[in-house]
Amino acid sequence: MTDQPDRAEATKKLGELIKDINIAMLTTIEADGALRSRPMSTQKSDFDGDLWFFLGASSPKAQEIRNDPRVNLSYANPDDQRYVSVSGRGELVRDQAKMKELWNPLFKAWFPDGLDDPDLTLLKVNVEQAEYWDSPSSTFVTLVGF
Amino acid sequence: MTDQPDRAEATKKLGELIKDINIAMLTTIEADGALRSRPMSTQKSDFDGDLWFFLGASSPKAQEIRNDPRVNLSYANPDDQRYVSVSGRGELVRDQAKMKELWNPLFKAWFPDGLDDPDLTLLKVNVEQAEYWDSPSSTFVTLVGF
Ligand SMILES: Cc1cc2nc3c(=O)[nH]c(=O)nc-3n(C[C@H](O)[C@H](O)[C@H](O)COP(=O)(O)O)c2cc1C
Repeated sequence: MTDQPDRAEATKKLGELIKDINIAMLTTIEADGALRSRPMSTQKSDFDGDLWFFLGASSPKAQEIRNDPRVNLSYANPDDQRYVSVSGRGELVRDQAKMKELWNPLFKAWFPDGLDDPDLTLLKVNVEQAEYWDSPSSTFVTLVGF
Repeated sequence: MTDQPDRAEATKKLGELIKDINIAMLTTIEADGALRSRPMSTQKSDFDGDLWFFLGASSPKAQEIRNDPRVNLSYANPDDQRYVSVSGRGELVRDQAKMKELWNPLFKAWFPDGLDDPDLTLLKVNVEQAEYWDSPSSTFVTLVGF
């Protein structure tokens, strides 16, 4: 089944699907071409078409995204068999106002100095395509319109 | 923290980490370069260095792997905050004996004709690198030696 909602609908649906999933796996392409993934804390803010993550500007994943901006985010909620794949392009953004808006004390686990950490940066992922599976053995639904 | 166990140890550890995770997200590179992921049922058999999945030989992901064998598998168990990233190369293998060995009636959800489906194929992923995170806010451990 393939659904073709428009941008607003696709954005709303994707926002609902990922809202309660706290960790996404971010896949990037390494310099040698290998695909690598790692868990990333998701944002509580409402999804408006871009996904935001905190990361260190000097971290390997930041370097990988500078080299090649193509990323995938996979969201899994095994309890209700919900799986979401998001393809997009990542951009490193050092926007103090946005960081303040998105900051959550839970992120101290990775950034003990919080907003004062000079290496703290945002990864903005511009969503280009998304698919989801929301029941066991379901075929996927493509969210079009991003 | 980076650990450097040898191949046997790395294989054993990875096997333990992924044993009870029924679904992995398989990321491949599409023809246009975008990264795409989808849920795939994992195997119950003991891990010996290769990961195996059932898929359709004519499915888009099979085509993507023929074009570019680099894949990533991400395993997530949110309940105990266990996340695993596996990087490797995929190969499509039509091995009847191996298919018989790995077949499980649960796969009928995706392949109703079971082992009689002429499109049924195995994806063998040769693991090249793996990392895991096994507690909240943990730094990762690289499993070396594959
Ligand atoms: C929980 C779950 C498990 C799945 N397991 C498999 C699988 O083992 N093999 C498979 O080919 N598709 C499986 N699928 C379907 C795939 O995720 C995907 O939708 C389908 O194979 C088409 O993928 P493609 O268009 O990228 O080739 C599963 C779907 C779900 C929701």
